[in-house]
Amino acid sequence: MNKAIFYHAGCPVCVEAEHSIAHALDRSRYAVEIVHLGEEKHRVSEAEKAGVKSVPALVLDGVPFHINFGADLAALK
Amino acid sequence: MNKAIFYHAGCPVCVEAEHSIAHALDRSRYAVEIVHLGEEKHRVSEAEKAGVKSVPALVLDGVPFHINFGADLAALK
Repeated sequence: MNKAIFYHAGCPVCVEAEHSIAHALDRSRYAVEIVHLGEEKHRVSEAEKAGVKSVPALVLDGVPFHINFGADLAALK
Repeated sequence: MNKAIFYHAGCPVCVEAEHSIAHALDRSRYAVEIVHLGEEKHRVSEAEKAGVKSVPALVLDGVPFHINFGADLAALK
């Protein structure tokens, strides 16, 4: 099973990306986890290590993809 | 069937996004079309109308999502 982690911060841009891209992933091949970094601040460093610079971002099997722009990761620390 | 159009220009950032995000979409729910704007320049205006500013970009049911950054759409005209 491949792993997909969608990091967001509850912003409108994040919600739109979650409802579209995160929900469009093939759940039979990807275990999709949605992480709200505003509520789970202890996971900001994990996102950072994966190369996430801003949210919303989707990390697919360890590779970060920034989707549009909602907020800098630095603003969530 | 939902519609997904992945616009790219053959750049390394585009190829990575195509191999990851475009291939991770659920093909049972999304008809996925891959468009190389460098080779199909007549479709640049279509991408522009959908709100695409740069590639790679994924348009899901008409809503544009810019994934990382490869090139400005203006550079492909």
